[in-house]
Amino acid sequence: MLQVKTPQEAFDIIEQTFSRTLPTERITADNALGRIIAEDVRAEEYVPGFDRSTVDGYAVIAADTFGCSDSIPAILEKAGAVEMGESPAFAVTQGKCVEIPTGGAVPKGADAAVMVEYTEDYGDGTVGIAKSIAPGGNIIFKGDDVFPGKTVLHRGRKLSAQDIGALAAMGKCLVTVVRKPRIAIISTGNELVEPDKIPKDGQIRDVNTSLLRALLTAWGAEAVPCGIVEDDEEKLFAAAEGALSRCDGIIISGGSSVGEKDNACRVIARLGEVLLHGIAMKPGKPTIIGRAGDKPMFGLPGHPVAACFTARLFVRKTLAQLTGEKYELRPISAEISENIGSNHGREEYIPVKLKSENGRTTAYPIRTKSGLITSLAGDDGWMRIPRDCEGIEKGRSVDIILNCVG
Amino acid sequence: MLQVKTPQEAFDIIEQTFSRTLPTERITADNALGRIIAEDVRAEEYVPGFDRSTVDGYAVIAADTFGCSDSIPAILEKAGAVEMGESPAFAVTQGKCVEIPTGGAVPKGADAAVMVEYTEDYGDGTVGIAKSIAPGGNIIFKGDDVFPGKTVLHRGRKLSAQDIGALAAMGKCLVTVVRKPRIAIISTGNELVEPDKIPKDGQIRDVNTSLLRALLTAWGAEAVPCGIVEDDEEKLFAAAEGALSRCDGIIISGGSSVGEKDNACRVIARLGEVLLHGIAMKPGKPTIIGRAGDKPMFGLPGHPVAACFTARLFVRKTLAQLTGEKYELRPISAEISENIGSNHGREEYIPVKLKSENGRTTAYPIRTKSGLITSLAGDDGWMRIPRDCEGIEKGRSVDIILNCVG
Repeated sequence: MLQVKTPQEAFDIIEQTFSRTLPTERITADNALGRIIAEDVRAEEYVPGFDRSTVDGYAVIAADTFGCSDSIPAILEKAGAVEMGESPAFAVTQGKCVEIPTGGAVPKGADAAVMVEYTEDYGDGTVGIAKSIAPGGNIIFKGDDVFPGKTVLHRGRKLSAQDIGALAAMGKCLVTVVRKPRIAIISTGNELVEPDKIPKDGQIRDVNTSLLRALLTAWGAEAVPCGIVEDDEEKLFAAAEGALSRCDGIIISGGSSVGEKDNACRVIARLGEVLLHGIAMKPGKPTIIGRAGDKPMFGLPGHPVAACFTARLFVRKTLAQLTGEKYELRPISAEISENIGSNHGREEYIPVKLKSENGRTTAYPIRTKSGLITSLAGDDGWMRIPRDCEGIEKGRSVDIILNCVG
Repeated sequence: MLQVKTPQEAFDIIEQTFSRTLPTERITADNALGRIIAEDVRAEEYVPGFDRSTVDGYAVIAADTFGCSDSIPAILEKAGAVEMGESPAFAVTQGKCVEIPTGGAVPKGADAAVMVEYTEDYGDGTVGIAKSIAPGGNIIFKGDDVFPGKTVLHRGRKLSAQDIGALAAMGKCLVTVVRKPRIAIISTGNELVEPDKIPKDGQIRDVNTSLLRALLTAWGAEAVPCGIVEDDEEKLFAAAEGALSRCDGIIISGGSSVGEKDNACRVIARLGEVLLHGIAMKPGKPTIIGRAGDKPMFGLPGHPVAACFTARLFVRKTLAQLTGEKYELRPISAEISENIGSNHGREEYIPVKLKSENGRTTAYPIRTKSGLITSLAGDDGWMRIPRDCEGIEKGRSVDIILNCVG
């Protein structure tokens, strides 16, 4: 029998065991989408580097507009026009204004910009201002965005498109990121054949190599598929040992239970140390987490749905540890569309489809037998039912983890 | 002045104008993560191809176990053992059972599998069964997963990791996907310099090329950066015309308003047709959508935050039209952390950070001046405030669109 631990205990073990050991590399920011940044990024300059107008109109001294209106406009002398991309050579003094485009540099002396809609060019060198403006109005000041020394991106962040934009704004064209973790994938089982083969009676196609490869890729790791190994401890040991020497971690799927032909646990013990064998969750109970030095080793269930859920939880978390990624499973709340029965002391994970209506999100459970991978095709996310939950009534709030592929 | 349309009208125009025109290509399923599948995928075989046990134990005729218990076990004759990956040569007849591993092929005659935990091997060729089981118990039947002719993946789906697993299960090693849309990116503005340059006074770095490149990449398109063009209609026309000839669509950012130096609208009109100029949203009002034949052309605001939000809404939607992707913006519901003021007749988009506590998700707005791209670094998603909304009270439900990077 397995000495099961809870999913939270498994997370704790992963957090206590694995930390960032991967080297860093310096790459161009434009190729860093989805990578984990390895250093705090501080601004070295002011962005913007000068006061900018946010409107097309006139740069003014705000006090010159106080009390003006449609019927009694303030009349200012037009002292020039700001050209985009150039530093204005003139200043605005009392009673004067300067034409300015959106994004133009605010001339010295001016402290606000009036929208062109509230002005009238009288054509005689003067401009009427029909609406008063407060100092600072319609101006982005030098350093409003960032100033030297400000930390804009914190180490461990997975770089989003907006982050890439922020790096460009700061002139950071190279960034230091953590090398992608290289994770070996081994499928084991006498019943398995490659996906391009026609299975004979008693055989099935190996799904987990393709599934885990795609999951690892989506999570920003480099998957190293190592093929199918039969139910033979020495052969599995040799394959796992070889893979471990070339990679930062290994995943063995299949043979993770306690039967005579379940070799994953023995092989993981021989290569290092078994940290955990058995997790109180459904699907996914016969899951192994081990270590060989600072390299993680997983034994996942052979059933693809169980392998999928245990990978989403524990492999994903471990990758975050290896890269130093600030990562949390961020569930959203949704209302359940039907009653869910008790789950008898273990956490249960159920794939769901989501529908949003009238400001409420409803989760529709997808019913699946363990192993029916095609039932997962089309899910939007997955629901977690806490352990010892005595069932959930239709309409109650549940936690949903979203699947994201961009 | 702009003749603005609502965001919904803009979506309608995109839906009515653009449809799938991109060619397909045949690629290996293992490289198809995130690609848009161009054909319905039907199963050609039964998966699994045979009845399989979901437990380690004994294959039995269920009726032989009826009425048995711990104290009065059913005694069955052990007729053999199923080997993994092999078709059992023997059948189970009344009063007999066969040892079977998880995933093993159920022998003819048997209609259930009893978990080994509820059995005892007496060592004399007989086995005691201590728990009755119903017909079908612990068996996945041939075709339970899929059967010939069943449509497993529908055309237009963006392939997830689970989908890649399902393709492997069905032996579909090649899939027909839509070629990635190639989208040109042009930044325009005399004030812009490349991100690796030090801006002089009045100049700023071009953020939008990097930002849009990363967004397009995250959405599965191929970005073709075409550099910075100054505020000159003929130069912008030449650059856009050249880019359009090599790509499936273009995005011009900057110069999208109605000022003298705003050339994007004139250039888009000369290259084809302006469908819309001005959208009632904040940020992002000066947005242009046009077409050149069946190729989309966008004029996005130069402000990076405005360019980011309009791209997320309208460029993303257009990419889905070009590839035939079944796509919807799927908002989740969250409670707002503070009062939000009225937004005066236009939809407003505000970046948010999310926190989940006690089954509720709270959205914390990130306050930003338009153009402050670094304020977006760190957002989890964005909130939509409907037009004509008279303000939202703290604690009320709002729609949130999540950012996903895997």
